Amino acid sequence: MATHSMPVKAEFPGTVAVIGTGTISLGWIVLFLANGLRVRVNSRRPDAEAYVRDAMRLLAPALPDGNADAAELMTRAEFEPDLELAVTDVDVVQEGAPESLSLKQELFSRIERAARADTLLLSSTSTLSPDDMADGLARPGRLLVGHPFNPPHVIPLVEVVTGKHADADVLERAVAFYRSVGKQPVVIRQPVLGFVANRLQSALLQEAIHLVLEGVITAADLDDAVTASIGLRWAAIGPFLAAHLAGGPGGFRHWMEHIGAGLEHGWRALGHPSVDAETVRQLTAQIDEGYGHRRYDDLVTERDQRQGAILAALGSTGQSSVSPPHGYAQAAPGRR
Amino acid sequence: MATHSMPVKAEFPGTVAVIGTGTISLGWIVLFLANGLRVRVNSRRPDAEAYVRDAMRLLAPALPDGNADAAELMTRAEFEPDLELAVTDVDVVQEGAPESLSLKQELFSRIERAARADTLLLSSTSTLSPDDMADGLARPGRLLVGHPFNPPHVIPLVEVVTGKHADADVLERAVAFYRSVGKQPVVIRQPVLGFVANRLQSALLQEAIHLVLEGVITAADLDDAVTASIGLRWAAIGPFLAAHLAGGPGGFRHWMEHIGAGLEHGWRALGHPSVDAETVRQLTAQIDEGYGHRRYDDLVTERDQRQGAILAALGSTGQSSVSPPHGYAQAAPGRR
Repeated sequence: MATHSMPVKAEFPGTVAVIGTGTISLGWIVLFLANGLRVRVNSRRPDAEAYVRDAMRLLAPALPDGNADAAELMTRAEFEPDLELAVTDVDVVQEGAPESLSLKQELFSRIERAARADTLLLSSTSTLSPDDMADGLARPGRLLVGHPFNPPHVIPLVEVVTGKHADADVLERAVAFYRSVGKQPVVIRQPVLGFVANRLQSALLQEAIHLVLEGVITAADLDDAVTASIGLRWAAIGPFLAAHLAGGPGGFRHWMEHIGAGLEHGWRALGHPSVDAETVRQLTAQIDEGYGHRRYDDLVTERDQRQGAILAALGSTGQSSVSPPHGYAQAAPGRR
Repeated sequence: MATHSMPVKAEFPGTVAVIGTGTISLGWIVLFLANGLRVRVNSRRPDAEAYVRDAMRLLAPALPDGNADAAELMTRAEFEPDLELAVTDVDVVQEGAPESLSLKQELFSRIERAARADTLLLSSTSTLSPDDMADGLARPGRLLVGHPFNPPHVIPLVEVVTGKHADADVLERAVAFYRSVGKQPVVIRQPVLGFVANRLQSALLQEAIHLVLEGVITAADLDDAVTASIGLRWAAIGPFLAAHLAGGPGGFRHWMEHIGAGLEHGWRALGHPSVDAETVRQLTAQIDEGYGHRRYDDLVTERDQRQGAILAALGSTGQSSVSPPHGYAQAAPGRR
């Protein structure tokens, strides 16, 4: 079986309908096109083709291989303002409409009626649950969330979120589809608020904001502390494997016996800041002090260069992940 | 002014006394030796020299440049079992005794009397405050925590922790010393429990454990989600700069106006797991399922290779940090 680090383009020589031309959808479009797929763009913008063409020029250089030709990409793009026609006979729908539940319910009802029975129905939503969006579908298990970490053509993660209607076959095909375009899909089995990556990010940010407001460290120094320690570590291996290895040959169990007792004590000491006007003022002042002397465009370029350099370096270590493909492993049963 | 990415070896051609030969101290020893410093090792182990020599062979390949010769390094190592003699006429003391407050108080009292008045007194402690350890010193402001993220010869961060006795000159010299050996020092102005990096790590781990216990995601999938999103991001730029850039040209203030209202709502939804025997059992089972088929040594090697590849890649982007040297910037006043 091919690993997710090797795109299996041959499995998906097909067509993807991308609904919408927001920032996330543009990222999907350039990624799908660069992986050899045809993309049918559904947008009511009268200038959709010119708009997407300009975006491809802007986004293509950030693709992993870095030398995609925007004009070549556009030869596989089609534009269809009618929703039903846009999803007719496509293999995958990647929906990126505004974050309105009623809007997405209506869209997916119409998509289900117009699309083939085997078309994958995937939503880019970051806030809505597949169960709610599928309310009213004849086969609600067809619909999954495929939530990318922004931007989708650069950052590997896509969270494949299932709910109570989970269909194992649909889930497997969605995971395979995302792997085929070089993404790192992970399966999330309950549509919890914020899914996983944003919740973890938010948990760290809460403590980061607390420490800065308390005057323990400046915002810019905290940024340096992260990139020079846990950022580096977590780009290499995740937090559970890190703990497993920090435990020595005794592994995670040894680590928990050694550190575990202190974990809860440490958690109780974490902060719970308020996000009020004074918080925004203090944090903004700190960010301005740390970064205000740098141009926005230059900082964005540096971020992208550094992320690209890391991805290229990890690719050159011979594998994209120390863990095996385990997207289908069963999650632990809830403890409730 | 030289940046912290360029070791300024000439500024510190001197001698460092390393107190202790635990894991952290061995990491400091190899790092200091590789940066051209003389190291006087203070250990009561009768086999100290052979023990350190073996450790240098093991640790040297993980140094940033990767081709340090352990035998060459050892030409600059001295061994002195007497504490007072060990710290006589050295430029820096890096203390790594066991985590006992009374022990460290006694050690630093003796060190202060035996060392030169300008010798930097630095403790590797991860749990004790500089104020407490300096209790009883004639000049308590001389003592700072210099807490590395493990292992010190690989991970750039060192947390330089000050307390109520903070001495600006000592702080500046400690930061310059750590920069001179290629570290990324950040200044922490209050000796809070866990300092900064471990608190941030703990905050993320709390939510990670919650999500796995609730059956939202497997431990190995969570690891993949982190490396493929926030790990990659935070190895490139820290969380505050990430938010600043996510805000678009309007920056951090725009991001807070757009996202800020949802932050507190999201924080209230985060989990507060108990670390009991059943938690340890469930998590250990998940780690075993995800990683039990891999040999411990192989996983460690892969972690180190991936971390090394990232560090090398970021070095090649031409700067080690997007932010300027700002170790001396004033932290925000506390809000209490």
